[in-house]
Amino acid sequence: KASPNAYQSAQQALTTFDYGKVSKLPDGRTLREYTMLAQDNEIEVAPGVFYPAWTYNGTAPGPTIRATEGDLLRIKFDNGSAHPHTIHFHGIHPGNMDGSFEIVQPGKSFTYEFTAEPFGLHLYHCHSMPLKKHIEKGLYGAFIIDPKEPRKKMKELVMVMNAFDTDFDGENEFYTVNGLANAFLDHPIPLKVGEEVRIYLVNVTEFDLINSFHLHGNMFKLYRTGTSLTHYEITDTVMLCQGERSVLEFSYKFPGKYMFHAHQSEFAELGWMGLFEVTE
Amino acid sequence: KASPNAYQSAQQALTTFDYGKVSKLPDGRTLREYTMLAQDNEIEVAPGVFYPAWTYNGTAPGPTIRATEGDLLRIKFDNGSAHPHTIHFHGIHPGNMDGSFEIVQPGKSFTYEFTAEPFGLHLYHCHSMPLKKHIEKGLYGAFIIDPKEPRKKMKELVMVMNAFDTDFDGENEFYTVNGLANAFLDHPIPLKVGEEVRIYLVNVTEFDLINSFHLHGNMFKLYRTGTSLTHYEITDTVMLCQGERSVLEFSYKFPGKYMFHAHQSEFAELGWMGLFEVTE
Amino acid sequence: KASPNAYQSAQQALTTFDYGKVSKLPDGRTLREYTMLAQDNEIEVAPGVFYPAWTYNGTAPGPTIRATEGDLLRIKFDNGSAHPHTIHFHGIHPGNMDGSFEIVQPGKSFTYEFTAEPFGLHLYHCHSMPLKKHIEKGLYGAFIIDPKEPRKKMKELVMVMNAFDTDFDGENEFYTVNGLANAFLDHPIPLKVGEEVRIYLVNVTEFDLINSFHLHGNMFKLYRTGTSLTHYEITDTVMLCQGERSVLEFSYKFPGKYMFHAHQSEFAELGWMGLFEVTE
Ligand SMILES: [Cu+2]
Ligand SMILES: [Cu+2]
Ligand SMILES: [Cu+2]
Ligand SMILES: [Cu+2]
Ligand SMILES: [Cu+2]
Ligand SMILES: [Cu+2]
Ligand code: NA
Ligand code: NA
Ligand code: NA
Ligand code: NA
Ligand code: NA
Ligand code: NA
Ligand SMILES: [Zn+2]
Ligand SMILES: [Zn+2]
Ligand SMILES: [Zn+2]
Ligand SMILES: [Zn+2]
Ligand SMILES: [Zn+2]
Ligand SMILES: [Zn+2]
Ligand SMILES: [Zn+2]
Ligand SMILES: [Zn+2]
Ligand SMILES: [Zn+2]
Repeated sequence: KASPNAYQSAQQALTTFDYGKVSKLPDGRTLREYTMLAQDNEIEVAPGVFYPAWTYNGTAPGPTIRATEGDLLRIKFDNGSAHPHTIHFHGIHPGNMDGSFEIVQPGKSFTYEFTAEPFGLHLYHCHSMPLKKHIEKGLYGAFIIDPKEPRKKMKELVMVMNAFDTDFDGENEFYTVNGLANAFLDHPIPLKVGEEVRIYLVNVTEFDLINSFHLHGNMFKLYRTGTSLTHYEITDTVMLCQGERSVLEFSYKFPGKYMFHAHQSEFAELGWMGLFEVTE
Repeated sequence: KASPNAYQSAQQALTTFDYGKVSKLPDGRTLREYTMLAQDNEIEVAPGVFYPAWTYNGTAPGPTIRATEGDLLRIKFDNGSAHPHTIHFHGIHPGNMDGSFEIVQPGKSFTYEFTAEPFGLHLYHCHSMPLKKHIEKGLYGAFIIDPKEPRKKMKELVMVMNAFDTDFDGENEFYTVNGLANAFLDHPIPLKVGEEVRIYLVNVTEFDLINSFHLHGNMFKLYRTGTSLTHYEITDTVMLCQGERSVLEFSYKFPGKYMFHAHQSEFAELGWMGLFEVTE
Repeated sequence: KASPNAYQSAQQALTTFDYGKVSKLPDGRTLREYTMLAQDNEIEVAPGVFYPAWTYNGTAPGPTIRATEGDLLRIKFDNGSAHPHTIHFHGIHPGNMDGSFEIVQPGKSFTYEFTAEPFGLHLYHCHSMPLKKHIEKGLYGAFIIDPKEPRKKMKELVMVMNAFDTDFDGENEFYTVNGLANAFLDHPIPLKVGEEVRIYLVNVTEFDLINSFHLHGNMFKLYRTGTSLTHYEITDTVMLCQGERSVLEFSYKFPGKYMFHAHQSEFAELGWMGLFEVTE
């Protein structure tokens, strides 16, 4: 098994949301202030396997940034890494807040400021060139914009599908959700029968053209990109290319242990597998 | 051309449904009993090319299991193979009927029992580890749950997209629907002008990240996962990752010969191509 | 930078539609006559990189053929290439107008005639065997059928995602939209704040299983295959396999420079990247 520390990171990515420091603007709008620090630091991506990652706030994925549609976001980015980086957010914002041209040199800072829109499940990642390098190294995370009228309250989990090229040959050796191979196979996620669950699923896997999520013994409502409150489909398998994301909702009818994993056998066997443990 | 036997297998997979042995339960519900036998047997996957497959009931894909939503299914699985296997069904069922933890050793049996739900197009496959091996060897099939109020009556065809690694190097040499390369190119599927057709399309292709179905000279209504009676889209090409499936409906306006094939040229050229022969 | 000629080709593919020679049939329907010439000719696919392409009307992609649902189309195809070719159209048409069996030898001609249906975004490509060769060499283009009640008037752009194997090893070295790597990075596409834009996006990329389009700083309405006037989803990233296509609609709220590119980092870095330059 991986160190408690590594598991704690994956678990924290699963259930922790960074709502920022909240205050009110003179016009009544909500201001949310976040701080993001890029660093070069080693992380454990599989039991005993350490990877020289580049991270936001110490982990890959970085924190899940969360806000409500219409909020003003102010994200202070400090580059504590030895490489130039940015934060590029998906979603609507002005071109000069896009993190694609304003490269932040080591030791420098940049503050991104924009209104959160539209509601949905988005993501952020570094956009320095070469893109491939800056993404594979671990600079990404989920970005949730809640609708003003919130979604139905339920248990919420964030799963960022990523992978690591630990021998530096341009192919992945480990596939994970939230940065640690088999994190939730070794530590099953507890659920109750009938408990409603919402998964915010993001794919940032580099090198492989797609990744996917398959749920055992159940079906989920699928909301592509999370930008509609009406689901598109009821299925048990969703495929996403890098940068795509979906919201999934389901509940279990029967107790038991249920796997979830990529339906690419190779990815599943190399660490992208987990368990729900459902009790009465 | 392949042996009559091999073609007959592919043709049988196209048009045969296993509804099980039907009886009534005391509470009025329908009970359906199926028997599935895992075996190690050689199959012809392209003219003159034999592959040492692992099969359910002798063929890859195995039988198309079919039931109506709400029926009680009892599937007796006998493992007559030299390897440990299971049957994992997609869809809703209790964890202990999921075929992921209860590995069935050679010579042993297991009976899966669960209620068929939800209506839609599902699939089954072995879930023994390593997953990759147990899927590529041929242990899979389509699983149709009809809505209580049946879909409109029309000609129905099952197409399971699979592939075979006949030189055991971890890449596929042959791509097929229903287990035989070019089966329906050498033996076109007859249709009538205006005849309505429904295809139950399942992708179980191992190694390659996606597969697809393209229809010539026509468009189809696309019902992803078959879980809705309203179509999502009108298109002529659908891409599926392993484990995904879709229901397609169409009819031809004009007589003639029309290809269908993967829109990945390589897969099409290596056997994933067929023909509809449409007459007045 | 590439030669002005090469850029002009990409730019022309972006904004030019071939409506054919228009006349009225006795029954009042519109007849549209097009001429298509297959040729073997060298094209510049990246600055200073020349590729021995096979083209329709001199470019890869070929012209965007455009008509209205219900029009009669007459497409005269002359094969001026040293290889046998066809034109295979996606959409509804008789089998003998499908361009899959009637191979047109060098120096020969064939006239395709069929009614344009259904409305949507389609494509055409050569269907001579081997398919892989005849597609990768450049024989493809977009095919738009407008609904009788036209879509809302807005700025329209055509983007055909393709790629080139310039060292002939069965893998792509350059990824482009409209045939020239980084064409619209070197020559940003001008837009106005609030200006509505519609992109007709087609994927014909050979060798790679998927390609995608990601838009920076914005979201778009996604109409898969363009066959519905209601959008499926609001997103910023769409993945397509070869032969798939989508209509995208959006407008920018803020001025600035905004990238669009494949969200496969490799494809983006090898030429599939462009810019919108949005001004007040
Ligand atoms: Cu970076
Ligand atoms: Cu499953
Ligand atoms: Cu098995
Ligand atoms: Cu076609
Ligand atoms: Cu050709
Ligand atoms: Cu972006
Ligand atoms: Na490796
Ligand atoms: Na799906
Ligand atoms: Na091989
Ligand atoms: Na499609
Ligand atoms: Na190469
Ligand atoms: Na998408
Ligand atoms: Zn590696
Ligand atoms: Zn991105
Ligand atoms: Zn599984
Ligand atoms: Zn092989
Ligand atoms: Zn499965
Ligand atoms: Zn074809
Ligand atoms: Zn090459
Ligand atoms: Zn095609
Ligand atoms: Zn980007």
